[in-house]
Amino acid sequence: MSERAPDGFGEHQPVKGPRKKKGLLIVNTGNGKGKTTAAFGMALRAWGRGMRVAVYQFIKPPTANFGEHRAAKRIGLPVHPLGDGFTWKSKDPERTRALAIEQWGRACRAMFSGELDVLVLDEFTYVLHYGWLPASEVLAALADRPPLLHVVITGRYAPAELVAAADLVTEMTLVKHPYREQGIKAQPGVEF
Amino acid sequence: MSERAPDGFGEHQPVKGPRKKKGLLIVNTGNGKGKTTAAFGMALRAWGRGMRVAVYQFIKPPTANFGEHRAAKRIGLPVHPLGDGFTWKSKDPERTRALAIEQWGRACRAMFSGELDVLVLDEFTYVLHYGWLPASEVLAALADRPPLLHVVITGRYAPAELVAAADLVTEMTLVKHPYREQGIKAQPGVEF
Repeated sequence: MSERAPDGFGEHQPVKGPRKKKGLLIVNTGNGKGKTTAAFGMALRAWGRGMRVAVYQFIKPPTANFGEHRAAKRIGLPVHPLGDGFTWKSKDPERTRALAIEQWGRACRAMFSGELDVLVLDEFTYVLHYGWLPASEVLAALADRPPLLHVVITGRYAPAELVAAADLVTEMTLVKHPYREQGIKAQPGVEF
Repeated sequence: MSERAPDGFGEHQPVKGPRKKKGLLIVNTGNGKGKTTAAFGMALRAWGRGMRVAVYQFIKPPTANFGEHRAAKRIGLPVHPLGDGFTWKSKDPERTRALAIEQWGRACRAMFSGELDVLVLDEFTYVLHYGWLPASEVLAALADRPPLLHVVITGRYAPAELVAAADLVTEMTLVKHPYREQGIKAQPGVEF
């Protein structure tokens, strides 16, 4: 038997002493799969507890209708995509930046509305990584948020200032990928 | 601008040439958060596409009623926990093993029923890691499964044979954790 417990199990046990409540700043980063997927999993978990959840997506375009969007619609979990599907091939960086700024404004209103328990900022690291918004302004807003609000930020290249400010940071690392290894492209239900 | 695209984005684009369909064996491992959470996120995504999904849990006890269980119940996604909450402190290894064997039998029936598109085997790596079931038998069954069935396995210590057999492997790495760094214990909606 290993001396280590299965993942996080002990934390599900009744705890001794008062349970400290704090809205966490959670970052899922790295080049592996599962960053957005885990954020949706947490949204589902919180939704299951009757918590108020909203997802703002910074890259996916408003027309996005992947499995997670369809599921969210069916269960009444608000997901707001407002991006232009930015990639390194994007041809209109000014539009990309303008959309990011607009979406940040909307996310901020949600963040300070007092009407949320969990706010997901999906693929938000790119906004910071590419400098579409000043990191100092973003971090100040996050620091000022209602103290019990959990914020989940996903995306590659989480900047050091964001990691420093975060409570929980996980790096998803690609070990093996079917596209790279076997030429199998993304499949519905698995990756979108 | 970086030369790398935001995570997986390109894969969401229309692809050239035929899209190869294959049931993937997906492993979420590592000591970080998000392994089970991402599996539930994928279950939600697949459910959103009308796919048939079931979750078998190998550590959580049948009484488990965390946020993800409540959400699954509300949306009609079958989640079957059958463990004894095993940790390294568990006192009855024979019972732990017997439950794992029983649960594997159930999961196998589901796997070969032809009635599923996605099967999640949550915290199943421990069954292999601790030798409750012979890896050769498990891997043979997985290899024989219906060719379009996606199987998602989560847990720490994914054994090398499992990684070798898998199509997609992600390691969730702990970068920063609120319990370790600030003494903040697991909170409802976030971690359970």
